[in-house]
Amino acid sequence: MKELNDAILTYGRGLGQDVVKVDMFLNHRIDTGLLFRMGEALAEHFRRQRPTLILTVEASGIALAVAAAHALDDIPVVFAKKAAASNQSDQMATAKVHSFTHNTDNIIRVDKRYIPRGSRVLIVDDFLAEGNAVRGMTEIVESLGARVCGVGIGIEKGFQPGGKALRDRGIDLMSLAVVKEIRDGRSVLEDD
Amino acid sequence: MKELNDAILTYGRGLGQDVVKVDMFLNHRIDTGLLFRMGEALAEHFRRQRPTLILTVEASGIALAVAAAHALDDIPVVFAKKAAASNQSDQMATAKVHSFTHNTDNIIRVDKRYIPRGSRVLIVDDFLAEGNAVRGMTEIVESLGARVCGVGIGIEKGFQPGGKALRDRGIDLMSLAVVKEIRDGRSVLEDD
Repeated sequence: MKELNDAILTYGRGLGQDVVKVDMFLNHRIDTGLLFRMGEALAEHFRRQRPTLILTVEASGIALAVAAAHALDDIPVVFAKKAAASNQSDQMATAKVHSFTHNTDNIIRVDKRYIPRGSRVLIVDDFLAEGNAVRGMTEIVESLGARVCGVGIGIEKGFQPGGKALRDRGIDLMSLAVVKEIRDGRSVLEDD
Repeated sequence: MKELNDAILTYGRGLGQDVVKVDMFLNHRIDTGLLFRMGEALAEHFRRQRPTLILTVEASGIALAVAAAHALDDIPVVFAKKAAASNQSDQMATAKVHSFTHNTDNIIRVDKRYIPRGSRVLIVDDFLAEGNAVRGMTEIVESLGARVCGVGIGIEKGFQPGGKALRDRGIDLMSLAVVKEIRDGRSVLEDD
């Protein structure tokens, strides 16, 4: 997506070999106009899969999930939670997800009632790197008798294995931008 | 807002004296259509304040903030972060916020660059109870030479002091629904 590529090149920063920092427009400050155009691009691609709900994980996936859901005629969004809260239900489906950014293992949780058996689930997230979050969400979806009909991503780190693993499994994956490498603090992007 | 009141009465559950559980449509599963109509209602009220950005706090405030920002001609959203991440900037404005739901003290953080001096900031959150999150965000906004031009809330717990404290200070506060009390597991609402 050209507008997203331009934003990454203009405002993004590369840290070290593997961090693409896009706090300025995607995951701390949100450029709302760009966000909704990203949601529309995902919706345009995935409409043919007829998703019945979008699943994402808190916190930074929520904005893009909501924008995509709005463009898909307001299908519901479910966001997996990372921390046990005192007022959460016991009826939780769970999966373990390792975060390289924070170097922690998180348990992600979804209330089973919110992914009905037979749902066609579009997974949406802001980033795809190792693919652990998507893998954890897929486990949860399949454990509930639903299926993943696609994976929509803002920015894929093409130098990490998550995207290839999904494509090898025949998953319909769309990444709006793919960073091929980080060189001298800048992202090198796949052609639009 | 009648549609939100109806959703609270139909799908919400009261736990004990003070927990209003609306996981079914607002802060775990999101009813996207309702969410955007809530955003439009906030936008209609606050447009006269000419906000230049919306500030919220992760995670469950993000969806409503994005919906309101979209209805306000796509002004930017900034979401305060709760946890230190290894790739966060040092340029963070911080405030301490006590969460009664989770019984923890969180430090919330905003990158100073994303609330420019002179900004007119609309604070948006899904819930208002004690008002600690709004107080923390207000501290951050004012420490950066910006000002809070309004506070837009999904559901206010009218039996807790956050709303009154804001109104007493002359803040333009709009809560789309106000729960007066929880009685026998059900919310009693202020008239629409």
